[in-house]
Amino acid sequence: MPVCYTTPAPEELRPVAGVRLGVAAAGIRKKDREDLTLVALDPGASVAGVFTQNRFCAAPVALCRERLAAGKEIRAFVINTGIANAGTGEPGRKAAEAVCMAAGELLGVPAASILPFSTGVILEPLPVGRLIAGLPAARQNLAPDGWYRAAHAIMTTDTVAKAVSKQAVIAGKPLTVTGMSKGAGMICPNMATMLGFLATDAAIAPPLLEALVKEAANQSFNCISVDGDTSTNDSFVLVASGRGALSFQTGEEEGWAEAKAVIIEAAEILAQAIIRDGEGATKFITVAVEGGRSEEECRLAAYAIAHSPLVKTAFFASDPNLGRILAALGRAGIGDLAVEGVRVWLESAGKNLRVLVSENGGRAASYREEDGGALMREAEITVRVDLGRGGARAKIYTCDFSHEYVRINADYRS
Amino acid sequence: MPVCYTTPAPEELRPVAGVRLGVAAAGIRKKDREDLTLVALDPGASVAGVFTQNRFCAAPVALCRERLAAGKEIRAFVINTGIANAGTGEPGRKAAEAVCMAAGELLGVPAASILPFSTGVILEPLPVGRLIAGLPAARQNLAPDGWYRAAHAIMTTDTVAKAVSKQAVIAGKPLTVTGMSKGAGMICPNMATMLGFLATDAAIAPPLLEALVKEAANQSFNCISVDGDTSTNDSFVLVASGRGALSFQTGEEEGWAEAKAVIIEAAEILAQAIIRDGEGATKFITVAVEGGRSEEECRLAAYAIAHSPLVKTAFFASDPNLGRILAALGRAGIGDLAVEGVRVWLESAGKNLRVLVSENGGRAASYREEDGGALMREAEITVRVDLGRGGARAKIYTCDFSHEYVRINADYRS
Repeated sequence: MPVCYTTPAPEELRPVAGVRLGVAAAGIRKKDREDLTLVALDPGASVAGVFTQNRFCAAPVALCRERLAAGKEIRAFVINTGIANAGTGEPGRKAAEAVCMAAGELLGVPAASILPFSTGVILEPLPVGRLIAGLPAARQNLAPDGWYRAAHAIMTTDTVAKAVSKQAVIAGKPLTVTGMSKGAGMICPNMATMLGFLATDAAIAPPLLEALVKEAANQSFNCISVDGDTSTNDSFVLVASGRGALSFQTGEEEGWAEAKAVIIEAAEILAQAIIRDGEGATKFITVAVEGGRSEEECRLAAYAIAHSPLVKTAFFASDPNLGRILAALGRAGIGDLAVEGVRVWLESAGKNLRVLVSENGGRAASYREEDGGALMREAEITVRVDLGRGGARAKIYTCDFSHEYVRINADYRS
Repeated sequence: MPVCYTTPAPEELRPVAGVRLGVAAAGIRKKDREDLTLVALDPGASVAGVFTQNRFCAAPVALCRERLAAGKEIRAFVINTGIANAGTGEPGRKAAEAVCMAAGELLGVPAASILPFSTGVILEPLPVGRLIAGLPAARQNLAPDGWYRAAHAIMTTDTVAKAVSKQAVIAGKPLTVTGMSKGAGMICPNMATMLGFLATDAAIAPPLLEALVKEAANQSFNCISVDGDTSTNDSFVLVASGRGALSFQTGEEEGWAEAKAVIIEAAEILAQAIIRDGEGATKFITVAVEGGRSEEECRLAAYAIAHSPLVKTAFFASDPNLGRILAALGRAGIGDLAVEGVRVWLESAGKNLRVLVSENGGRAASYREEDGGALMREAEITVRVDLGRGGARAKIYTCDFSHEYVRINADYRS
């Protein structure tokens, strides 16, 4: 059960002109489960992406990077779940290339215009034959309203499909942004998360789109962590189909700031949905660190708290054992942190509650255990930290650590 | 149930001349539990220690550091469990000072010759009155053979008491080394672990002892991690009572190398015992990384594997889902790691088994799932990684991640 998140209804996911999606059950790891998704782009779309920094990056990630860097027109994505095609060496690369070749033939476009994406078990070979055999069926049901089915077909340990759709009127013209994401474990994106796809009907020139995908990733997928384990397959891709009414070439045009805001908000919703559906999650935690000398030290502090198994199990138990937050802060790697200047609050946005937990290096005089306890029972909690030494800030979204996390990850695969 | 570790019998813990230990039930957090330990040192002992680098270090840690730095003679330790006296600000420091003052009066020695140690819940005040009231009883039963009782009295979430005793004849003279440690969670020492005490009857000059405690910590307590959470209270203290037959002033004496080896081996046993009794541990894992350009990058790689919740849950499940090891390695922060040169093995020392898991950036051709599976079922497993780019190496000891870990840490305190 995700924390305060439900998949939008099929009709809420508005088609993006120039983008069609189709799915198939290719039997990659499980029989009769839709596990193959084809996304076809009409000519003229711009595509930009950010990918995992994991050195054991998957073969499809390496191919995506090369093809986007080459600047060739992208005409389709092939996405499979079940097998990650990571830790597969040279044979893995050949497998990803074979998939693109087959998809290219089927769609009548060059193999180099296809981006492959895989997610699932690492170190096992991609069943290329079954995957390719599934492509015609996926092509058969390509449709502009395929987002809902596709959002389900890209899931692995996810318990809900994650999708978003926003419409706006900007400078008098309509804008549509629709997207989907997947991921629940091995989530600590370093550039982008497991799989995130976002498409808009606006035309956005490639350099502008390139900058936007980085900005959007930094405010969304790069701010989340379930377990601190950066995946081998993280990919976040932004498509501007150019089939809508809006067009941005330089970023100087009227409405660019508004369009950007809508797109970034959609990316945030997709990224947060991954945390709300984090493996075993029962709480959605925002760690907001401010008052740092640099954004980097704020991120260090936020990650130390967000990754601490002791902090995460205390949230699961709704136990205000808040010394664990101080211990995590203290080991965050800020060598000259003066703990006397640090303040820590717990907040609940929903109920407008705020409790000062710590100041002057110890427990706040005003702190009462029952206030901390009440806040810890909320489903959405913010840990706010003021480092008291500067003006920088950073924010990380995470979830708690439950029995379910261990059960899922001790059972997954076997 | 710890992994392949049992507490030595009382008679196996040989007294160290010049060191006496006494315990009492002071009711610090629980009634009728021995939770206060007094260690009295005869005049002339040398003492050296290493302490946590956590910025939110506990008040007793700060006092220990100052007193050892001042170079005054140390005459006693006061150790309590239940409350860590960390995150307690200025009142916490005054509490630790009051305890030392009371112990000094009782023993007829200066307050500044007392080192305080605390372990337990962070952010809660130390019950100074109850602690001080317990001191006379602890003094009453001070005895050279008090190690066994003391090793039990310093436990918190530990399931077994951890102690070690070694005797050797070096350069024709007898040497005794006896010690104890505690810790099971919040274990990722940065300088030393929760609490470790080791005493020898040799005389060792202070500068020599200072160097030795660092060397011993680096080969023992600084190589272990249960959950990556560096405690606020880590302390490892080495006592040379000087009441035995051996004496080392410069390190040039005959037998120094052998005496060092015995002391370091004892420290390793104490440190590993903490991992074997790690919260919820069912497996003892050694991560041995070699072939690195520097020890630092080997440690980065070893910690990335040892801290990965996904790797740790796979060990718990005995599931050879070994791609998770590659994913952890890939995100370890070695920016220019060429994954094609990396090799990964699983080994079981007990049964002399060794399985090559990965080479050439993928699964080893010779790898068979049943071999990996058989190894994963062992209680003691080594993950050996060759980074293939240099001559440096590092080793980290850790344990798996089980349902028990979550249960213990979601229940602890509440």
